[in-house]
Amino acid sequence: MSGQRDVAVLVGSLRQGAFSRTLANALAVLALPTLKLSIVEIGDLPFYNQDHEADPPAAWLAFRQRIAAADAVLFVTPEYNRSVPAVLKNALDVASRPYGRSAWNGKPGAVVSVSPGQLGGFGANHHLRQSLVFLNVPTMQQPECYVGAAGDLFDADGAIVKPATREFLEAFMQAFGVWIATQRGT
Amino acid sequence: MSGQRDVAVLVGSLRQGAFSRTLANALAVLALPTLKLSIVEIGDLPFYNQDHEADPPAAWLAFRQRIAAADAVLFVTPEYNRSVPAVLKNALDVASRPYGRSAWNGKPGAVVSVSPGQLGGFGANHHLRQSLVFLNVPTMQQPECYVGAAGDLFDADGAIVKPATREFLEAFMQAFGVWIATQRGT
Amino acid sequence: MSGQRDVAVLVGSLRQGAFSRTLANALAVLALPTLKLSIVEIGDLPFYNQDHEADPPAAWLAFRQRIAAADAVLFVTPEYNRSVPAVLKNALDVASRPYGRSAWNGKPGAVVSVSPGQLGGFGANHHLRQSLVFLNVPTMQQPECYVGAAGDLFDADGAIVKPATREFLEAFMQAFGVWIATQRGT
Amino acid sequence: MSGQRDVAVLVGSLRQGAFSRTLANALAVLALPTLKLSIVEIGDLPFYNQDHEADPPAAWLAFRQRIAAADAVLFVTPEYNRSVPAVLKNALDVASRPYGRSAWNGKPGAVVSVSPGQLGGFGANHHLRQSLVFLNVPTMQQPECYVGAAGDLFDADGAIVKPATREFLEAFMQAFGVWIATQRGT
Repeated sequence: MSGQRDVAVLVGSLRQGAFSRTLANALAVLALPTLKLSIVEIGDLPFYNQDHEADPPAAWLAFRQRIAAADAVLFVTPEYNRSVPAVLKNALDVASRPYGRSAWNGKPGAVVSVSPGQLGGFGANHHLRQSLVFLNVPTMQQPECYVGAAGDLFDADGAIVKPATREFLEAFMQAFGVWIATQRGT
Repeated sequence: MSGQRDVAVLVGSLRQGAFSRTLANALAVLALPTLKLSIVEIGDLPFYNQDHEADPPAAWLAFRQRIAAADAVLFVTPEYNRSVPAVLKNALDVASRPYGRSAWNGKPGAVVSVSPGQLGGFGANHHLRQSLVFLNVPTMQQPECYVGAAGDLFDADGAIVKPATREFLEAFMQAFGVWIATQRGT
Repeated sequence: MSGQRDVAVLVGSLRQGAFSRTLANALAVLALPTLKLSIVEIGDLPFYNQDHEADPPAAWLAFRQRIAAADAVLFVTPEYNRSVPAVLKNALDVASRPYGRSAWNGKPGAVVSVSPGQLGGFGANHHLRQSLVFLNVPTMQQPECYVGAAGDLFDADGAIVKPATREFLEAFMQAFGVWIATQRGT
Repeated sequence: MSGQRDVAVLVGSLRQGAFSRTLANALAVLALPTLKLSIVEIGDLPFYNQDHEADPPAAWLAFRQRIAAADAVLFVTPEYNRSVPAVLKNALDVASRPYGRSAWNGKPGAVVSVSPGQLGGFGANHHLRQSLVFLNVPTMQQPECYVGAAGDLFDADGAIVKPATREFLEAFMQAFGVWIATQRGT
């Protein structure tokens, strides 16, 4: 192990008070001290358009640099229409370019999906994983993390209510720390 | 049958001269006179954000109305990172809301995926289809349409070069016409 | 409408007392009188092997005939390892051949997935749907049917315990009846 | 590195002269000396049925032991009906049980899909990968390996005809060797 890891966190919802954002913040607490989680904002990235590579938007460049600098990436996302929300897919697309210089390449990753209902965002979780194959993000397989019934998850301060859930999520973050160490060889 | 159908076409790439846009234009010619294809622009739709439903952007409202008015929808899309481009996924998300008033509901649909390489956008094609299950878009199953080697597809005027490809695409559009008639019962 | 429909039901588990089999039986009751559901056994179909097409196993031939004779097909399946159980996938493969004479072609279909946990067999449900695209089975999109917590579903006689669940499943079967009528045009 | 790796190879087709089997044999040559590939036969495994766990078929037990003993697993498979062939899915299911003692757990893996057409078995490749998430098989992301036009791939002795293809496959096997070393930490 080589000190605390810098983990870039991408949140799939723009809604203020989104479950996924609250969950990302809760995970940041549970992940310490091994992993330092920082949410990277993606709501202001212009849609990917190859024509703009000649003179890329500043927001694209800053985002690409931020991802490139991270030790690992964590995705915390709801499901929209059985797949990945557009704002998160756009972040994947933006940092995958220009051709041959993807910022994702080789970056260890993990996926958390979250839904108000019971299905836990399964569709978003696995569609995202298919993109991560192409992006060469070695993604932790187990434990998987499908968080359902998100409306019952947090207390008024955004902390996880149920001890069993908190323990699962803490174990998830610890496993991610081990995964990162394995992938980076240090 | 009841006259010419109004088919809203969504193109998954914002690039000028995108293969998918050129292909959509070629399909519009082949689909006549049964189907009238019109590209609906989606590049200026703000990212879906539930917080904005209280006062929705004008672009969202116009897009929802345009989809609601169409007889059917046709998706012509490249694959980005083994999935649907963000700009197209955003269009799906925007017109799926507000809750309970999705513009997609019951609208017959078809999917064309296109790639410069051989794989024909398979990943985008089927991720899109998974969303269309949720959106209750009855989607034509066969013929499937995976267009590969898109760089060799068009002449300088954007017409399909190979007769066999043109015939396949013409048959695809005819089958879509039959599919629409079956789903609408008229 | 043209009389009672003959719906071939494929159950994805071979376990005696499988939730999916119990559920299929419960659905058969709820579907009457519009739809007559009959479970078609698939556990004795030899693995698909193209070499055997020269002299196909009798079980293959009988199964292909049974599917070809049905008005529609209903899949009721658990999820094994986030996908379709092999026994069900084999049934799909067997009746899809010989080349050009698939028994599935054009047959209206619906999918019910079931799991003891909360995720409701989402992975099996959508992997199955991807195959049904290729097999040209027009598959009902909505309502989707993900049945979770299957251990609490039935009373000792295999009837659905909760009224809300029973009503949902009854509405599902009614919608399937409408779907079949639409696809068959009668 | 710690000597030659024992890689269990699962072939998704039972057809004699299957492209996937010929390809597996060609890969075995290209993988030497780092990796020793051995095809593990799966055509005689009875369908998974939980009722048989009380007295499991000998073929199940032998297969589970063989997988458990391997250093890594390689899947070489065609696509049947846009998904994984049943015979291969059954092998996954059989060795995933009994509950809590999956033979796949933690075993590094890689996926090669192959088709006579251009699409390269994309659907089988990614459906298989979804199962490998659940089975906790850390699966190499890049290079992906979609082998199309399989009818033109081999000479009469089953060797790869095109130098560029041979070099790609050799690089793929080398990358898999590195992946195995990373996952095993030795």
